[in-house]
Amino acid sequence: MSDEILTIGICGGTGSGKTTLTNALRRRFPDDISIVYQDNYYRRNDEMPPEERAKLNYDHPSAIELDLMAEQIRQLKEGKSVLCPVYDFSINNRTDETVEIRPTRVIIVEGILIFTSRELRDLLDIKVFVDADADVRILRRLSRDITERGRTIESVINQYLTTVKPMHEQFVEPSKKYADILVQNGGLNKVAAELLIGRVKEQLGKDPLYIVD
Amino acid sequence: MSDEILTIGICGGTGSGKTTLTNALRRRFPDDISIVYQDNYYRRNDEMPPEERAKLNYDHPSAIELDLMAEQIRQLKEGKSVLCPVYDFSINNRTDETVEIRPTRVIIVEGILIFTSRELRDLLDIKVFVDADADVRILRRLSRDITERGRTIESVINQYLTTVKPMHEQFVEPSKKYADILVQNGGLNKVAAELLIGRVKEQLGKDPLYIVD
Repeated sequence: MSDEILTIGICGGTGSGKTTLTNALRRRFPDDISIVYQDNYYRRNDEMPPEERAKLNYDHPSAIELDLMAEQIRQLKEGKSVLCPVYDFSINNRTDETVEIRPTRVIIVEGILIFTSRELRDLLDIKVFVDADADVRILRRLSRDITERGRTIESVINQYLTTVKPMHEQFVEPSKKYADILVQNGGLNKVAAELLIGRVKEQLGKDPLYIVD
Repeated sequence: MSDEILTIGICGGTGSGKTTLTNALRRRFPDDISIVYQDNYYRRNDEMPPEERAKLNYDHPSAIELDLMAEQIRQLKEGKSVLCPVYDFSINNRTDETVEIRPTRVIIVEGILIFTSRELRDLLDIKVFVDADADVRILRRLSRDITERGRTIESVINQYLTTVKPMHEQFVEPSKKYADILVQNGGLNKVAAELLIGRVKEQLGKDPLYIVD
């Protein structure tokens, strides 16, 4: 058991299974893991009319306030709570709300572009890249965006081909080389999850909750 | 601490850093880890004249007695010692010697082709694929074969282009998909090594020796 705060970065393309892996960890240690989601750090675009905001490229690193994200992770590592911004996807803008993130002994940082920033990478003790074939990933995203976000097939396909895929190839895929371990089949990979659960267990000096995934 | 025997498969192309990772684990638990090396299971070719043996394709799965390897791992998992064959690279043939492998609580299985066999894969609790760029791998192999095995640059290059590379692409690379985790930069990847050391520590219920790599 160490006094330090352990930071685990979980990166990977859309639909790769990042969130499933993140949840597999958090569910076993619900009180001891905080999560910093890249999705909350999309830039504020108040001055832009809504129809303009909808056209922005949200898959480019410049759409994310990665430096604010790094700053908040740094504060968490120093044992301070932070007020994380909250983003509203329905209006494509940051809200005025914030959510408090507590400096638990394990912090997971999750997002598609987190390994593109050297500043962020340097704050992560374990860098995990969750990988899956591109066809499997787009099918997962398609299902999710249609059922959970009420999108049309056409709009998902259009966004995928115009920004998601090219930005993946330009930024996400090359950032894989910074990962300490690559995990295939994301959330379905029990062996990889167990290795990370074991590491968190060691960090916390306590056993995980018994959960059947 | 579990009563079961934990088996860890360490696969990857030539020069990927498999052995460095294997040694990083074993050096920390020298009494509790046995290693089954694929290189010891090259087939016996007594009937063939030496000049014929030298021309065989040693990078094809059929050159290895993978079923004997699986059988010996199965015996180890049942708590039995096995007599592992010993191969002599200088004569390209199996010797009449054997080496005893004891059924320690952790068994590492190391080799380039171990994930190509379903029978072998099913015996492995954790499947690790050590990855590195092809150019880095051939440079490592070149250095090793010249300095440690007295080979000429020409012969290493010739073997690499005629069998090592095509067999890698046909058999080793596709077997990557069976890995639970992929580790980049093999032996130099301390974070990945620490995750596996942590898992072995948990299995054995004892701390690793303190070693600075």
